[in-house]
Amino acid sequence: MQNAIDEIKQLLGSRGWLEGEDTATYTADIRGTYKGVALLVARPANTQEVSGVVKICRKHGIAIVPQSGNTGLCGGAVPKGNRPSIVLSLSRMNKLISVDPLRYSVTAEAGCIVQTIHDAAAGVDRSFALDWGARGSAMIGGAISTNAGGMNVLRFGNTRDQVLGLEVVLPDGQIWDGLRALRKDSSGYDMKHLFIGAEGTLGIITKAIMRLHPRPQRDQTMFASVGDAPRLMELFALARAIASDGLTAFELVPGFMVEKALAKYSKLQRPLETRAEWYVMVRFSGRDEIDQKFESFFEQAMEKGLITDASLAQNLAQEQNLWDLRDEIPPLKLMTGKMLKWDASVPIDRIIPFLGEAEGRARALEPNAKLIAFGHAGDGNLHMSVWPEGTPGDPAFDTLCKQIVSAIDELIWSYGGSICAEHGVGVENFDRVQGQKSTLEFEMMARIKMLFDPDGLMNPGKMFDPVQALARAAE
Amino acid sequence: MQNAIDEIKQLLGSRGWLEGEDTATYTADIRGTYKGVALLVARPANTQEVSGVVKICRKHGIAIVPQSGNTGLCGGAVPKGNRPSIVLSLSRMNKLISVDPLRYSVTAEAGCIVQTIHDAAAGVDRSFALDWGARGSAMIGGAISTNAGGMNVLRFGNTRDQVLGLEVVLPDGQIWDGLRALRKDSSGYDMKHLFIGAEGTLGIITKAIMRLHPRPQRDQTMFASVGDAPRLMELFALARAIASDGLTAFELVPGFMVEKALAKYSKLQRPLETRAEWYVMVRFSGRDEIDQKFESFFEQAMEKGLITDASLAQNLAQEQNLWDLRDEIPPLKLMTGKMLKWDASVPIDRIIPFLGEAEGRARALEPNAKLIAFGHAGDGNLHMSVWPEGTPGDPAFDTLCKQIVSAIDELIWSYGGSICAEHGVGVENFDRVQGQKSTLEFEMMARIKMLFDPDGLMNPGKMFDPVQALARAAE
Repeated sequence: MQNAIDEIKQLLGSRGWLEGEDTATYTADIRGTYKGVALLVARPANTQEVSGVVKICRKHGIAIVPQSGNTGLCGGAVPKGNRPSIVLSLSRMNKLISVDPLRYSVTAEAGCIVQTIHDAAAGVDRSFALDWGARGSAMIGGAISTNAGGMNVLRFGNTRDQVLGLEVVLPDGQIWDGLRALRKDSSGYDMKHLFIGAEGTLGIITKAIMRLHPRPQRDQTMFASVGDAPRLMELFALARAIASDGLTAFELVPGFMVEKALAKYSKLQRPLETRAEWYVMVRFSGRDEIDQKFESFFEQAMEKGLITDASLAQNLAQEQNLWDLRDEIPPLKLMTGKMLKWDASVPIDRIIPFLGEAEGRARALEPNAKLIAFGHAGDGNLHMSVWPEGTPGDPAFDTLCKQIVSAIDELIWSYGGSICAEHGVGVENFDRVQGQKSTLEFEMMARIKMLFDPDGLMNPGKMFDPVQALARAAE
Repeated sequence: MQNAIDEIKQLLGSRGWLEGEDTATYTADIRGTYKGVALLVARPANTQEVSGVVKICRKHGIAIVPQSGNTGLCGGAVPKGNRPSIVLSLSRMNKLISVDPLRYSVTAEAGCIVQTIHDAAAGVDRSFALDWGARGSAMIGGAISTNAGGMNVLRFGNTRDQVLGLEVVLPDGQIWDGLRALRKDSSGYDMKHLFIGAEGTLGIITKAIMRLHPRPQRDQTMFASVGDAPRLMELFALARAIASDGLTAFELVPGFMVEKALAKYSKLQRPLETRAEWYVMVRFSGRDEIDQKFESFFEQAMEKGLITDASLAQNLAQEQNLWDLRDEIPPLKLMTGKMLKWDASVPIDRIIPFLGEAEGRARALEPNAKLIAFGHAGDGNLHMSVWPEGTPGDPAFDTLCKQIVSAIDELIWSYGGSICAEHGVGVENFDRVQGQKSTLEFEMMARIKMLFDPDGLMNPGKMFDPVQALARAAE
């Protein structure tokens, strides 16, 4: 083993690796929920070095945990278990290789920070779609490997939809050059989609060509009180009919959490005097026409009873205030107690019935349980949590928590939904996601995993267990 | 063999199969370029029957050629070679299962006609993105299997981008239920993308959930004379900056072919008095704001010398006239002689230099060769043909033709382009596409093919030869 480590050190040079205490920030996730052990953190400077490290690890049977910004929420970038592992950090491969405004694309190394791409795009009057809280430290390789979602999915789709081409180091160290910038190419199986969202289990993404989009002249957001929650998706359809592609966000916000956030953070301004059980934040993007569109939207939504009141951000400060409020809604910042959480998606027209049933299931098990949901309603994606009363560590309470999780997971599946909407599987959902797909689908995944990585060295213990999946299929 | 055929007949019942002369329209492609032989045309009525037929074929080693509308241009849906084959026609599975306006999706069987989905979408104030000439007979299964392109790719992407979920009968007869309508789901490898664009070589798509989009209030098209061809993509960028997502078509049309089409078809009106080497058709879609946007676009494009004249369709008849003109441009309808053709894509900013070099390469080999290109410039996708002078059948001329094809294929690849942009590979590009991708990429494709279809029964002789690909990789 030490031979292998020495070989890697020699290949990468003194700037190319870390060990001992220096590895601490690489072996734990950003929230400190997941911690692992690494023989070494390898920090290759280019694709050839990534390939070299992979070949050494393969020869010696060392597992590889690819890591870019390490901002994930599911522990996917941290070593798991006692298997000898290295972390392969893409953080030195952080170059934005080119910005092509006429091609509407950028080419970047996997360690390039998401914010860097935003800045470069803005500099040539373009916009980049991927956006979420960690934009200043998340790196593009991790975004692609987890098929990250975020604030702009409604208009632009997930990370998957932004990828034009990829370069990937395969588990045997070969380099697949799929760095194509084409809008149309139907010349064989589309290999890049296998690596997108694979959480580093099939190879290491080293470079990507990402789409850019035209830059809207301005964004403006309306904060509105929902008048009739069961008809929420009629409100969505109205906004979409009026603004069409100019509808770029449709976020659901619970009144209860707005009050909590306003009480806690003095920087936040109350956006609307009307108190409501639910609010929506509706963002239109475009040019001057959006004033008129908001006017139509407001009038029609009021007339139909879909909203009862609304205010429109009148300047950048008010606009920022709304999105700051949205950023402070995540309940971990505002609640205490035991949180059971979901990054759930359901078909967009089923959100409200789903939420009612989810609360029912939680309360059937724990009558005082509180359900909180907010998020990307226009994508059918809810960040949902249940807060049961009780003492963590008490076996009866822990069992109750598990029952609530199972009951709601199953409800999500009965709606044709996913418990891994935009944050991925990683370690966090490794066990739970088993129930989401058929034995056949896991078998297909396992066969593909075995094909690319027969030794199981790429990010083991993440997403799913191929050996178990095959065993189940053989039953 | 006869046992197998009898078994299939018995499974499907008398309406479920055709043989002998009745198979003629199923064993030749729409243009009569490709012809094959089938033991039987199986016409299953549902997914279970598809699965049953596949199991029988597998047991007896009979190849299966999946076919839906049979409108493809590359021979992918017609039996190839002398191997005992059946055609598995999805044409009886033509139901539109559901239309979900609030979910912005439809669910359809693979044999559902593309036009049917358009009509259903329009009926609930939605639009469906897939559109091309054969919309009245093309079926959704074939569109997905070839990842078809068409007129709306600029705004909405290819067929791949319209697919939310799939049901697929695998080569062993198992049914994979991936019929999910979710906008966000990062819970494992995205299996559906393997089957999209796989031309039926990995399984048979039996059902699909497809996206719908908001319906624009109107479409309007400007026909403009290009002022400075080398700056064509500046013109594109200007249109996109002004109209943003409202720019829904940017088609390049050669003046030479406009004159030919106008001379041949008396129904067509001349859209513009100015004669130019190149025209563009620029379509904006949206609401009232598009008038003002066309005004800005016209003024700025004229001022910058990017166009020299333009006319805007003033009513539906004028709008239709422009698109009829566009439909009559394909040179087969207007030219005589030997046509060498390409469905090429290059990065969008390289179109004009590429066309100049392509013409140069053709003329270096045959000084009188004429190059004609038109198409989806906003997607980097050109339908291009070269017309060399000579007598087909004359060995020297045939060799010359091959040289021109090779020279231009290689030029396309040197631009990072594809020779199979939107029509697929099929039989037509089976040999030529070999040069487009690395040995490693074909090896990856071959291993996946072997994994799903170890007996090689699914649409053999189409897209690529996995055995050859593995042999080349082993060299």
